[in-house]
Amino acid sequence: MILPDFYVDELIKKAITEDINYIDVSSAYLFSDDDRTDAYFVSKADGVLCGIDIAMRVFSLLDNTFEYTLYKHDGEELKAGDLIAEFSGKTLKLLEGERTSLNLLQHMSGVASMTNAAVKAVEGTGTSIADTRKTLPGLRAIQKYAVTCGGGHNHRYNLSDAAMLKDNHIDAGGGITKTVEALRKKIGHTVKIEVETRTLDEVKEAVAAGADIIMLDNMNLEQMKEAVDVIDGKALTEASGNVTLENIRTVAQAGVDIISMGAITHSVKAFDISMRIKK
Amino acid sequence: MILPDFYVDELIKKAITEDINYIDVSSAYLFSDDDRTDAYFVSKADGVLCGIDIAMRVFSLLDNTFEYTLYKHDGEELKAGDLIAEFSGKTLKLLEGERTSLNLLQHMSGVASMTNAAVKAVEGTGTSIADTRKTLPGLRAIQKYAVTCGGGHNHRYNLSDAAMLKDNHIDAGGGITKTVEALRKKIGHTVKIEVETRTLDEVKEAVAAGADIIMLDNMNLEQMKEAVDVIDGKALTEASGNVTLENIRTVAQAGVDIISMGAITHSVKAFDISMRIKK
Amino acid sequence: MILPDFYVDELIKKAITEDINYIDVSSAYLFSDDDRTDAYFVSKADGVLCGIDIAMRVFSLLDNTFEYTLYKHDGEELKAGDLIAEFSGKTLKLLEGERTSLNLLQHMSGVASMTNAAVKAVEGTGTSIADTRKTLPGLRAIQKYAVTCGGGHNHRYNLSDAAMLKDNHIDAGGGITKTVEALRKKIGHTVKIEVETRTLDEVKEAVAAGADIIMLDNMNLEQMKEAVDVIDGKALTEASGNVTLENIRTVAQAGVDIISMGAITHSVKAFDISMRIKK
Amino acid sequence: MILPDFYVDELIKKAITEDINYIDVSSAYLFSDDDRTDAYFVSKADGVLCGIDIAMRVFSLLDNTFEYTLYKHDGEELKAGDLIAEFSGKTLKLLEGERTSLNLLQHMSGVASMTNAAVKAVEGTGTSIADTRKTLPGLRAIQKYAVTCGGGHNHRYNLSDAAMLKDNHIDAGGGITKTVEALRKKIGHTVKIEVETRTLDEVKEAVAAGADIIMLDNMNLEQMKEAVDVIDGKALTEASGNVTLENIRTVAQAGVDIISMGAITHSVKAFDISMRIKK
Amino acid sequence: MILPDFYVDELIKKAITEDINYIDVSSAYLFSDDDRTDAYFVSKADGVLCGIDIAMRVFSLLDNTFEYTLYKHDGEELKAGDLIAEFSGKTLKLLEGERTSLNLLQHMSGVASMTNAAVKAVEGTGTSIADTRKTLPGLRAIQKYAVTCGGGHNHRYNLSDAAMLKDNHIDAGGGITKTVEALRKKIGHTVKIEVETRTLDEVKEAVAAGADIIMLDNMNLEQMKEAVDVIDGKALTEASGNVTLENIRTVAQAGVDIISMGAITHSVKAFDISMRIKK
Amino acid sequence: MILPDFYVDELIKKAITEDINYIDVSSAYLFSDDDRTDAYFVSKADGVLCGIDIAMRVFSLLDNTFEYTLYKHDGEELKAGDLIAEFSGKTLKLLEGERTSLNLLQHMSGVASMTNAAVKAVEGTGTSIADTRKTLPGLRAIQKYAVTCGGGHNHRYNLSDAAMLKDNHIDAGGGITKTVEALRKKIGHTVKIEVETRTLDEVKEAVAAGADIIMLDNMNLEQMKEAVDVIDGKALTEASGNVTLENIRTVAQAGVDIISMGAITHSVKAFDISMRIKK
Repeated sequence: MILPDFYVDELIKKAITEDINYIDVSSAYLFSDDDRTDAYFVSKADGVLCGIDIAMRVFSLLDNTFEYTLYKHDGEELKAGDLIAEFSGKTLKLLEGERTSLNLLQHMSGVASMTNAAVKAVEGTGTSIADTRKTLPGLRAIQKYAVTCGGGHNHRYNLSDAAMLKDNHIDAGGGITKTVEALRKKIGHTVKIEVETRTLDEVKEAVAAGADIIMLDNMNLEQMKEAVDVIDGKALTEASGNVTLENIRTVAQAGVDIISMGAITHSVKAFDISMRIKK
Repeated sequence: MILPDFYVDELIKKAITEDINYIDVSSAYLFSDDDRTDAYFVSKADGVLCGIDIAMRVFSLLDNTFEYTLYKHDGEELKAGDLIAEFSGKTLKLLEGERTSLNLLQHMSGVASMTNAAVKAVEGTGTSIADTRKTLPGLRAIQKYAVTCGGGHNHRYNLSDAAMLKDNHIDAGGGITKTVEALRKKIGHTVKIEVETRTLDEVKEAVAAGADIIMLDNMNLEQMKEAVDVIDGKALTEASGNVTLENIRTVAQAGVDIISMGAITHSVKAFDISMRIKK
Repeated sequence: MILPDFYVDELIKKAITEDINYIDVSSAYLFSDDDRTDAYFVSKADGVLCGIDIAMRVFSLLDNTFEYTLYKHDGEELKAGDLIAEFSGKTLKLLEGERTSLNLLQHMSGVASMTNAAVKAVEGTGTSIADTRKTLPGLRAIQKYAVTCGGGHNHRYNLSDAAMLKDNHIDAGGGITKTVEALRKKIGHTVKIEVETRTLDEVKEAVAAGADIIMLDNMNLEQMKEAVDVIDGKALTEASGNVTLENIRTVAQAGVDIISMGAITHSVKAFDISMRIKK
Repeated sequence: MILPDFYVDELIKKAITEDINYIDVSSAYLFSDDDRTDAYFVSKADGVLCGIDIAMRVFSLLDNTFEYTLYKHDGEELKAGDLIAEFSGKTLKLLEGERTSLNLLQHMSGVASMTNAAVKAVEGTGTSIADTRKTLPGLRAIQKYAVTCGGGHNHRYNLSDAAMLKDNHIDAGGGITKTVEALRKKIGHTVKIEVETRTLDEVKEAVAAGADIIMLDNMNLEQMKEAVDVIDGKALTEASGNVTLENIRTVAQAGVDIISMGAITHSVKAFDISMRIKK
Repeated sequence: MILPDFYVDELIKKAITEDINYIDVSSAYLFSDDDRTDAYFVSKADGVLCGIDIAMRVFSLLDNTFEYTLYKHDGEELKAGDLIAEFSGKTLKLLEGERTSLNLLQHMSGVASMTNAAVKAVEGTGTSIADTRKTLPGLRAIQKYAVTCGGGHNHRYNLSDAAMLKDNHIDAGGGITKTVEALRKKIGHTVKIEVETRTLDEVKEAVAAGADIIMLDNMNLEQMKEAVDVIDGKALTEASGNVTLENIRTVAQAGVDIISMGAITHSVKAFDISMRIKK
Repeated sequence: MILPDFYVDELIKKAITEDINYIDVSSAYLFSDDDRTDAYFVSKADGVLCGIDIAMRVFSLLDNTFEYTLYKHDGEELKAGDLIAEFSGKTLKLLEGERTSLNLLQHMSGVASMTNAAVKAVEGTGTSIADTRKTLPGLRAIQKYAVTCGGGHNHRYNLSDAAMLKDNHIDAGGGITKTVEALRKKIGHTVKIEVETRTLDEVKEAVAAGADIIMLDNMNLEQMKEAVDVIDGKALTEASGNVTLENIRTVAQAGVDIISMGAITHSVKAFDISMRIKK
C-alpha cells in the first residue's frame, strides 16, 4: 500500500477503541480464546474496491493469528457477488473487528466508486477529476488515497503545498497582478499559484500575472469555453462548482484540464460489502 | 454543548493539523497579524443545524481574539438564506480555519438533517429513529450527537454497553434460550440484551428467554406485524434493514418501537452552508 | 485475553516510560545485550491471579526475544508458594521491566483477590458483587477486568452507558415519576435507568415509574428487606454504602440482587508476588 | 502547585474521558446549559489533604465558568467535618466531574494520610520516611507528590536518576567493590549509588567501595543496629522490608536515616471526602 | 505568528516535560507560589532573532500570570547587547521554563542567523537561498519558519508536496523523458516536478521533458553556467552541493535561481542569548 | 541498544510523519510493491558512529521485509570510506525512509564525534566531559545517549534528578549555607546538590555547607586551580563556561573532575554519511 502502514494503524486503533472501549460484552463471555472462524467479504454492488489492506489490518491488529487471502485489490472493479477476501482468525476477534473493518472498507470503496463514476463520465475528453479539501475530519489521507484508486487525481493536500488566491487575497493584495507578484517573492519555488476567477477579465489578468493554474469558478459553459481559449495552454484550467454526474461531461467538453468535485469526499455513499461467516 | 469541550478540541486540532500542516502559504505572507475580518455563516438549504459550537470553536482555537454571535443553535431548523452566525477575527486565522470549520458543520448538519427527515416521516406513529455503529472512523461522538440534534435516538455507543446476539453468538451458545441465560449470568446488571431474529419462532424464543430488545432483521411488513403481536410489549422491538425514507412510515406502522438506520451516519450528504466575508 | 492487546500496550508503555525515562543506570552499563536470565514469578499469599498476560507483555514490549510459560492464568486461585510463570530474556530488559510488571500484576491480583473475598462471603445467597465508578484514574479497564476475574460483575462502565438518577436529578426533574418519564423519552433504548432511593416511599415511586434498577442507598437491613418485598422482582435491587466484608453476607440475605462496593477498586491492597532469578 | 499544570491536565483528561466517554446520559437531557449549582467538599475522616488543586482543575477543564474558594490546602491536616472547598458551576458539568474529581482527591489524600501516619510514628527519631518505585501505573507523579504532602520524602523517581545495585548487578559485576567501581566510571557525576546489603560483611564492603547509600534489606533490628554502627555516617542508611505502622518506630530507633515503604503507594486506602450540593 | 499556536504548544509541552519530568527539585522547595521575578532576554551576538513568541509561550504555558513586552520581533536584526524582551512571572515558573525557552530561542535564532548570512552573501544577484529536508527530527516546522525569518525560502515541506526525480526514479522510469511523462499523468496538478541532473545532456532532456525545476547537482561553476544558458528560463534552476558561505556568491553569479543548503538546518550553531534576572 | 526500543519508535514515527505526511509523490507511482533495492551506508568523514540501530529501525518501521547487516556499531570509530551497514528492502520504502534515517544518524554521529573530540583532548588528565540541559527540544534522550557513545558522561537528565543552586536560589534561601541546609531537609536522599560558585569565598562556603558538587562558573585558570585546592576532594568539581576544544586541555589541567559543554548538544555539526544504492 502506498500509505505508510503505521499512519493507518493510528486511525484503525482510534476506530477500534471507539467501537469497543472496554470489551465486547456480547462475545467476550461466549467464546473461548481457542474458538476460530472462517469468513469472507463479498461485494453487494458494482463499483471500485478501496481499503481492503486496511480492512484486513483491523483484524491483524486485534489478532496476531489472523490470516487472509485477497481476491480483489485496491483500485479493481467489483461486481455484485464478487468474492473479495477470505480470512480466518479467532472468533472473538473477528466479531470485535467486523464493524470497524467494514466501516473503513465501505467508506473508502464508496469514495473510489463515486470518483470512478465521474472519471468514466469524462472518459476520452482529456479532462481529469480532482478532489478538494472538503474532506471529513481525520480522514483526509484515506479519502485522498481512495480518490486515486477510483482513477481521480489529488488536488493540494493542505494549505501549505499550493497557493489558491481567492477574492480576499486579491483584494488584500491590490489586484491579481500585484498579489501574484508579491506572493511569488515569498513562497518556495516548488509551490504553484492558482487564481480563482469569475470573469474573462480576471482570467486575462491571471494569465498575464503568470498564474500556474486558473480556476473557473461557477462559470457557465459559454464562459468556460471562452476562458479556455483565452488561456490557451499558458496555465492549467480547473472548473469548479455546480458540477454533477449529469452535467460533468459537458463541462469537460468545454476543454478544461481539471474538474474538481467536493462531493466525492464530503457526500459519500457507503459501498455495500458484507462479511459472511462460513459454517 | 453536551459533548465535553476538550474531547472535541482533540478532533478539531487533528482536522486543522491535517488541513494546514505547516502554514497557509496563500495567506501567511499577504495579511499582517493586525488585519481583521467580519464574516458570517448562511444556510444554503433547508434542514437542521448541528455543530455550530464546534464550528466556532475551530476559530477560537486558532485565534484568541475571535468573537461571535449565534442566530441559530444546534437542533434548530434552517431555511435556505437563514443567517446562522456572525463573527469577527484575524483575517489570517479566519481564512485558515474556514475549511475545517465548514467541513465539520456541513457534515454534522448533514447527519442531523437526514435524521430529521426520517423522524418527520414517522411522526405520530410512536416509533423512534435510532442510529447504528455504522459510523465513520473517529467521528462517532459527533455523529451520534448530530443524530440527537435531528430528533433521533442513540443505539448502543459501543460493544461494551449493550449485548446484541446474532447468529454466531446463538449458534455458539446453543440456541437463543441457553445463550441469553448464559450471558445474563456474566454481564453487568445495567447491560440490556438484544436478540436478532429472522423468524417468528425465533421471536417467540427470544421473548421467552427474556430478551430486553428484539431485532426484527430484514423481515417483511407482514412478518413484522406478527412479531409485534407476539412480543406484545414484553420486549422492545427494533426494525432494521431495507429501510428507506420512502418505506419508513409503513415500517413504523407495523408497530415497532424503534427503526435503526445505518445511512444517517454512513452515507451522509453534506448540508450546504457558506461562509461570507463582509466587505 | 478479553481486553484488546493494543489498549493495554498504551498503559504499559506509559508505565515503563514513567519508570525508566531515559535508561536504567544501574544495569545499562553492567550487562551486555547478550546476557540472558531465567526467572519466575511466585505467589507469596493466597488469592486470585489477575494480570499475568499483561505482566508478560511488559517484558515482550521491552525484549522481542522474551519467552515464557504460564502455570496459572487470570481468574485462577493462588496459594502462597505457587509457581505462576517461568520466563527467560535479556538480563538488561528483565531488570528494566521487573518493577512495572509487578506493579501491574500485584495491583490487578489485589483487585481480583479482594473481589473474590466478597464473592465468597455471599456464596449461595444469589446476590452478586459489583464494582462502581470509584476507580483509579487511567486504570478503569484493568480494574473492571480484574473484578470479573475475581468473580464479581461490572456496574456501568461510564456515564454514557446507563442512567443513575440521584437527588439532584430527581429534584431538577420534578420528582421520580416525572424524571424517569422525561429521561425515557430522550435516552437510547439500550440504556437502563437506575434510581437511587432512601425511603420506602421513594422505592414505591421508582417501581411505579418503571425504573430498571433500584438502588437502596445506605438503608439498614430492615429497610432493605421491606424494599425488596415492595419491589418484588419488578426491578433489580442494588445495595450500596456501609458494606464491609464483615456485614456483607447479612446484607445479601436481605435479598438484594446486587451489592456494589467501591473499596474493591479505590482501596486495593497489592497482592504479594515476587520475581525470582534462577541462578 | 509544584507539579506543572499541563502535566496534570493530561491525567485529568484521560480520567474524564474514561468516565464520560460520550455524554452523561443521566444529566445531559435533564439540565440546561444555564442551570447552576453551589456545592462543597467536606472531610469525612481525619488525615492530610492532597490533590485539592487537581480536584478543582477537573471542574475547570469541564466548565470555564467554574469558581471556587479553598479552605484547606495540600499538606494541611483534616478533621472529619472540615469544610475543604466551596464552589459553583454549571450543574451539568459539576455532576459530570464529581466522580473524577473525588477519585483523584480521595486517592491522593489517602497516600498523604498514610504517609503522614508513618511520619508521625517516627517523629523525633531523626529518621525520614521515603516512598519507592512501587507506584500505580500512570500515577507516579501524583503519588510521589502526595507522599511529600504527607511529610514523606521521595526516593528515586525512576531508573535513570539513581543507581541501586542488587544481587544480580553485584554478581554480574564481580562483587560489590568491583561493581561500584565499574559503575562509577560510567554514570554521570550527579548520580548516587545505593547498594543493597543483607549481611554485615556486605555492609562493610559497600562502605569501603564508597557507596552513597546502603540499603539494609530485610535485616532484623539487631543487624540494623550493627550495620548503622559499622557505617558510622560514611553513607546514608535505608531500611526496607517488613516495615509496618506497628514496628516502624522500633526500626527508626535502630538509627537508620531513611525507612522506605511500598505500601504508601501500592496499597492505598481512599480517604473519605464527600461532595455536597447546597440546596 | 504564522505558525498555528497550538502546534507549537505540543512541541513546547514535549520539551518542558523532557526538562522537568516531575518537579524542579532546586526550586520547588525554596520559592513560594507568590514569589515573583522580573527578568529580560539580551542578545550576546549579532544576527537575526527568531522564536521570541515561542520562547514567551513557554512561560505562559507554565504560569498564567506571566506578562511580557517585546522589544524585538521575529525576523529583526540583533546586535550584541540588544534588549529583546522584558517579562515578569512567578519565580518558580521562570526558573523552570528558562532552559526550555532559551533552547528553543537560541536554536531558532541560530537557523535564522545562519540563513541570513547566506542571504546577505548573495545579495543583489537575484538568487534566493532555500532550505532542504535535512532538518532535525520533530523540528521541521520551526526550522523552516526560522529559515524564512532569516530571509531564506522554503523548499518542499515533505515528500507529498513536490516531486524530485533522482537517479533511482529515472532508471526505474526508463530515462528522464519517460519518467516525467509517466509521473505527470499520475500526480496532482498542483505538484511541480524537479529533476536532478549531473550533465548537460541530462539538463537538455529535463528541459525538453517539461521539468518545472532542474537541480544542478554538484556541478562546477562552468557546468552551471552552461546549464543556465541551456535552460534559458524554461525551468527554474537550483544549485545544490558543495556550497559554503565562502563560495556561495560565486555560485549565485552562475545565474541559478535558487541555492539550497542543508547546513542551515542540519548543522546549526546556537545563537547566544541570555536571560538575566532583575535584582 | 540501551534506549528502550519503543521510546525511539515514537520519535521515528514523528519524524517520518513530518517527512512523508501523505505519500511520496516521486516514488509512489513509479515503483511497484515488489521492486527491491540493495543499498549501504558509507562514512564520508572521520569520527564516531552513533544511531545506527535507530537508522535501521526507520526502515523496519516502514517495511517489514527490511533486512540489514551492520559492519560498525554505536560508539565505534569511523574513517572516511568505512562501510557502516548493508541493507535490502522494498525500493519504495527505502526511498521514503532515506532522509529520515540519515537525518537521525548524521545528527547523532555529529554529537558523538564532537564529544569524542573533547574527550580525546583531555585524555590522560583524569577529567571527564559532560553534557548539559542545553539540548534540542524533543531530542534529549538521543543526544544524551550520543554523548555517551562519544565517551562523554551525562550530567543530570532533568530538573528532577539533581539540584543545582544558582544565584537566585542562594539569594532566596539566604546564602549558600542556609540554602543547602534547607534543601537537604526537603529533597530525597538520592538527590545530589550542586552549587554554582564564582569566587573563592563562595567555594569555601559551599564546601562547608556540604555541597556534593561545586561548579566553578566562568572562572579563569588561576581561580580554578585555587578552587580545586580549597575543595581538596571534599566535593566534585565541575568547570563550565568559555570552554572550547582549543582551551579544554588547559582547563582540565587545572584539576577539575568534570568539564561540562553545551556545544556538544546545542551546536552540533551533522556528520557526513551517505546512502548508496547498489546497481
